[in-house]
Amino acid sequence: MINSFAGPEIERLINTLAKLPGMGPRSARRAVLAMMKSKDKVMRPLLLALSDAIDKVHPCTVCGNIDSIDPCAICIDDKRDQGLVCVVEDVSDLWALERSHAHKGVYHVLGGTLSAIDGVGPDDLNIPKLIKKAASNQVREVIVATNATVDGQTTANYISDQLANCNVTLTRLAHGVPVGGELDYLDDGTLTAAMHARRPV
Amino acid sequence: MINSFAGPEIERLINTLAKLPGMGPRSARRAVLAMMKSKDKVMRPLLLALSDAIDKVHPCTVCGNIDSIDPCAICIDDKRDQGLVCVVEDVSDLWALERSHAHKGVYHVLGGTLSAIDGVGPDDLNIPKLIKKAASNQVREVIVATNATVDGQTTANYISDQLANCNVTLTRLAHGVPVGGELDYLDDGTLTAAMHARRPV
Repeated sequence: MINSFAGPEIERLINTLAKLPGMGPRSARRAVLAMMKSKDKVMRPLLLALSDAIDKVHPCTVCGNIDSIDPCAICIDDKRDQGLVCVVEDVSDLWALERSHAHKGVYHVLGGTLSAIDGVGPDDLNIPKLIKKAASNQVREVIVATNATVDGQTTANYISDQLANCNVTLTRLAHGVPVGGELDYLDDGTLTAAMHARRPV
Repeated sequence: MINSFAGPEIERLINTLAKLPGMGPRSARRAVLAMMKSKDKVMRPLLLALSDAIDKVHPCTVCGNIDSIDPCAICIDDKRDQGLVCVVEDVSDLWALERSHAHKGVYHVLGGTLSAIDGVGPDDLNIPKLIKKAASNQVREVIVATNATVDGQTTANYISDQLANCNVTLTRLAHGVPVGGELDYLDDGTLTAAMHARRPV
C-alpha cells in the first residue's frame, strides 16, 4: 500500500515505524510528518537516541534485563538482596515491578512463557540458567512472578517442579482484588482466589 | 519520570519516542522493548530509514510537499495539469487527496492556517508564493481545499480576497453529506450546506 507521496525514503520510514507495537500506517504517517516538521527538535534526537541504544544496550548475562553495562545496574547493586530472586516473563514486567518499588531483591527474566502452540520449550527460555542459579546456594528465595495467564501459570508450575529439589523457598505473587477494584466488575476466578486467601483484619 | 530501569540510553530513547504524536510513555516503552527484542529486524531498519530520510528529504521549493527531489515528483510530473493548483493546509492533506486519486493537477501546501490566537499571519504561511504563482499566467484554476474548520475557512477567505485580482478561476471543495454517512448523525451545518447545494438527479 502506498502511504505517502514523498518518495521512497519517506515510504520506507513510514513502513518501518508502522511495525512498532501500537503503531499502524496512519499513526506512522502522522509521526513522520511531525518529525519532518521539526527535524532538529524531534527527528535528530530520535536518530541519536536510536543509534546510541542500538550500540550500547545489551541483555544482562546474569538476569536478562537490558542495560548498557553487563551485569546490569540491578545485578551489581549491593544494596539489593542478591538472595531474593524474582522471576518475570519479560523486561516490561521487571520495569513494572521496579516502578512499584515493591521488590528489593534481584530479577531473572525468562524472555517469554512456555507455549505448546507456539513451540516454546524450556530451552528456548532462560530457565536452565535459573536452575543453576537456584542450585548455587547463593539464592534464598525465588518469587515466581509470571503473568496470571494460562501460559504464565504453566511456566510457573514448570519452574516450581524444576526447583523443588533446590534448597530455596518458592513463593508466588498473591491473587486477589486489585487495589481500587470493584467486586461487581471482577471475574469469578479472582473473587474465588481472594476469598480463599482471605486474611485476618 | 523514570520510565525504564535499563540505563540512560533506553530512558532517552523512550522519552524521544514518547514525543511523537499518538505516542506516550507507555507505548514508547512497549515500542522500545519490541525494538530491543529484534534489533536486526526492527531497530536497525528504523535507524537506517531515519538517517536516510533526515538527510535526503526536504520541502519542495515549488509547492511545499516533502520529497527527496526538488522540485518534488508531483511538480515535475508532466502528465499532471500544471495549470490546476490545489491549495491545502498540510502535507498530510496532500497525501489524503493523492490517495483518493481525485486531483490530477498540482498542489500548494500552506503549512498551516491563519490563526489570530496562535499569532499566525499570512507571512508565516506559504501565501506570498501562492499569489506570485497565481499571477504568473501559468495557473488557470486554484482549488482552495483548506479544512472545513473555522481557521481553515478564514484562511480560504483570505486567499480568495488576495487572488481576486488575478486572472484565475477560484473554486473550493463541495460541502455535503459524506458518502456512506447517515442524515440522522450529521450536524445542522452540513445538512443545510447539502440542501443548498442540491443537484438535479
